[in-house]
Amino acid sequence: MIDAAKLYAYIEANRERFLDEFAEFVAIPTVAAQKRGVHEGADWLIRRLQKLGAKAQSFDLPNGGSPMIFAEIGEGPRTLMVYNHYDVQPETPLELWESPPFALTFRDGLMIARGVADDKGELLARIQMIEAWLATQGPLPLKIKFVFEGEEEIGSVNLTTWTHEHRHLLDADGVLWEGGGYDEAGRITMAEGCKGIAYFELHCQGASHDLHSSLAPLIVNPAWRLVQALSTMKDAQDRITIDGYMDVVRPMPQTAIDRIDALPFESAKMRQNVGLSTWINDMDDVIALRRFMLEPTLTICGLNSGYTDEGTKTVLPAKAMAKIDCRLVPDLTPELAQRLIREHLDRRGYTDIEMVMLAGEHPAMETQDSAIRQAAIKACKEVLGQDPVMTPWFAGSGPVYPLSVELGIPVVSAGATWHPNARAHSPNENIYVEDYFRTMRFTAALIDHFVQDE
Amino acid sequence: MIDAAKLYAYIEANRERFLDEFAEFVAIPTVAAQKRGVHEGADWLIRRLQKLGAKAQSFDLPNGGSPMIFAEIGEGPRTLMVYNHYDVQPETPLELWESPPFALTFRDGLMIARGVADDKGELLARIQMIEAWLATQGPLPLKIKFVFEGEEEIGSVNLTTWTHEHRHLLDADGVLWEGGGYDEAGRITMAEGCKGIAYFELHCQGASHDLHSSLAPLIVNPAWRLVQALSTMKDAQDRITIDGYMDVVRPMPQTAIDRIDALPFESAKMRQNVGLSTWINDMDDVIALRRFMLEPTLTICGLNSGYTDEGTKTVLPAKAMAKIDCRLVPDLTPELAQRLIREHLDRRGYTDIEMVMLAGEHPAMETQDSAIRQAAIKACKEVLGQDPVMTPWFAGSGPVYPLSVELGIPVVSAGATWHPNARAHSPNENIYVEDYFRTMRFTAALIDHFVQDE
Repeated sequence: MIDAAKLYAYIEANRERFLDEFAEFVAIPTVAAQKRGVHEGADWLIRRLQKLGAKAQSFDLPNGGSPMIFAEIGEGPRTLMVYNHYDVQPETPLELWESPPFALTFRDGLMIARGVADDKGELLARIQMIEAWLATQGPLPLKIKFVFEGEEEIGSVNLTTWTHEHRHLLDADGVLWEGGGYDEAGRITMAEGCKGIAYFELHCQGASHDLHSSLAPLIVNPAWRLVQALSTMKDAQDRITIDGYMDVVRPMPQTAIDRIDALPFESAKMRQNVGLSTWINDMDDVIALRRFMLEPTLTICGLNSGYTDEGTKTVLPAKAMAKIDCRLVPDLTPELAQRLIREHLDRRGYTDIEMVMLAGEHPAMETQDSAIRQAAIKACKEVLGQDPVMTPWFAGSGPVYPLSVELGIPVVSAGATWHPNARAHSPNENIYVEDYFRTMRFTAALIDHFVQDE
Repeated sequence: MIDAAKLYAYIEANRERFLDEFAEFVAIPTVAAQKRGVHEGADWLIRRLQKLGAKAQSFDLPNGGSPMIFAEIGEGPRTLMVYNHYDVQPETPLELWESPPFALTFRDGLMIARGVADDKGELLARIQMIEAWLATQGPLPLKIKFVFEGEEEIGSVNLTTWTHEHRHLLDADGVLWEGGGYDEAGRITMAEGCKGIAYFELHCQGASHDLHSSLAPLIVNPAWRLVQALSTMKDAQDRITIDGYMDVVRPMPQTAIDRIDALPFESAKMRQNVGLSTWINDMDDVIALRRFMLEPTLTICGLNSGYTDEGTKTVLPAKAMAKIDCRLVPDLTPELAQRLIREHLDRRGYTDIEMVMLAGEHPAMETQDSAIRQAAIKACKEVLGQDPVMTPWFAGSGPVYPLSVELGIPVVSAGATWHPNARAHSPNENIYVEDYFRTMRFTAALIDHFVQDE
């Protein structure tokens, strides 16, 4: 058992230094989508891990991608893999930020900046906790393997290949994943997997350059063509109508459905947070929660064509583009989703519409009891004073499949930084200052239980 | 009959001064969409007209719009209204300009700058020609009324109201419109009207802010909603399917169809210029030209939603927007088009999609023989050495309706500045230097014949 009082006192004594360090980390604009600041961010992390005493390595990825960081510290009968990512989403739209996106800003008990929730806060809190552990408890009683990715926000495009090539580094008894936090009622929520994802662009080309719109009766308009093609992929009731897409979805076992039905669902508060009075299609909460957890999606994330600034420009666009993501469930793999969409478009004559895959991740939706799961539950009771809500998986995605399912290592997403209005991927992303320190205390207890239960 | 030799000699002798003056006019960035430079441009024109000896007035328009300019010069039994506009399109995208957009640049016999074709070249050439006339022929044998607009490129949003309020100023026997020039085969093309236009935006709102796309099973996606709504307005064969829209289109008389079938149509060159091997739906040229001239359109000019920069952002957009223009033919007025589209959307449950009208102009597609038409044909033969192609109307739009149809004054678009690669509304807009002076000689002959035929 750790001496929690000494650990907490160290954290308290170093509070300001820890937050200064967090501000420094957040100030590096590690936007993977634009290859901005990612090498600087990786270098910063390597130095931080070395300062901790870890053996840290950086692995270059193809096409100037954000380096993978792998670090080891401690020795013991058990090994814990800790996954986080240091890249962040683009900060646009800039005009909606109330403070500069990469300047850590304190307001009303919050810390506000791009990446504080997703995922730099949890990442650095875990490192700083290990520093506190070493300073107050002595050497770690287990081996920790940090796997810090820099391309999570662009779909972990190189992670599967990297894990296959570095299989020898990745043995572990449990994976502590990113994420975890509070729901709308203040309950801690943990998950043991996630949906998969396929992210792609559709491109449609018309004339060689934008034309005067009086030519519309003569010349194909790629914006109309893209709209028509898209309209065959989903109906007005938001049902996916891609040929065969819903047919491959494996029915989930009743046990999974029962777990989902038993989950708390703060639907009224969730809707209030996003300014809507009803769910789509006026679904009731039971149906909504099942759909949220169990169904694949097909989401237009972006649409662009022609003139989009203020006022009128009578232009016939030369190009149109849509960005689309599919959240995937068993047995819908990224490869299968891609093939079904391509065939669906071809069958309807849209062979000219180009489909560019940008990212793909398999779903990881098989759960099991495990030591890491039990350690997380105990740590939650002990430090946060409550039984966690164990969500079978997140409706979001992440590279759980290559690091957990493929390697046969149980996983849990558990922490205390996320909260319902954290605005990840949005302007004014934020976490509570106190949750940053709560995450340290929780993670220390999790490790303590994970080692004791051996 | 004018003494053409003396007139031409004066123009030749003042060639450099005329071009310097043109450079000065072009240098004023009269971008109506952004209310840039329009008051400066109007002041410059008033001074130029006063220097000519005209009685010139400027009329302020609502909301700081570009002033209307009205000027009179000359006396005689006939009155000619001359319509041009001094505003220009925005110069974006800047990076595609090979010289600064507002610096008149001479290259390969061309003059290059924003607005040289549309419509400052023709406007100033007409003024400078009157100077040459007065200097070499004595007083004008007719009254000329210059109507110079500064909001043509934003849909002449105030012109109809202004014409109604200043009806007493606007009597005339003919209107000499802007435009006119060469087709792909070097034939002079004139027109006697134009299609109308309705330009509007559709706005669809979902959640109060962009969300993580994992929430897609729960929350309405305005991009999908807009795509579904748009897809009900046109089918995959590019036919407009707005309830009642095509039903109100008046069948055109066979005489008009015959005139269109007889028009030369440089279809192969046109397609080559835009990089396409076929017209939409593989139409043959006869069908294509009829469709171009006779049918209304519904064109997506712009589409915007969510994340449109490079790479992936897994976002559920809060908003989606489309910019749409309708080219209108009899009896489809802007007001009727707006009402039909609104009702069509409402009938399908899209009452939440907001429709914002930005501009509307009635079609002006009734042609008749007239003195101004005959004068233009004679002047073309005499000065440019060819029979013009008389297009019944342009497939584009302009405020012909309030200044010609409503006032019962015949109109012709005739000049020699436009050519097929003039790139109006695009980077590197240009006209030929010699066409600038040809337009002066042509316009002098047109006035001469217009007066003689009285």
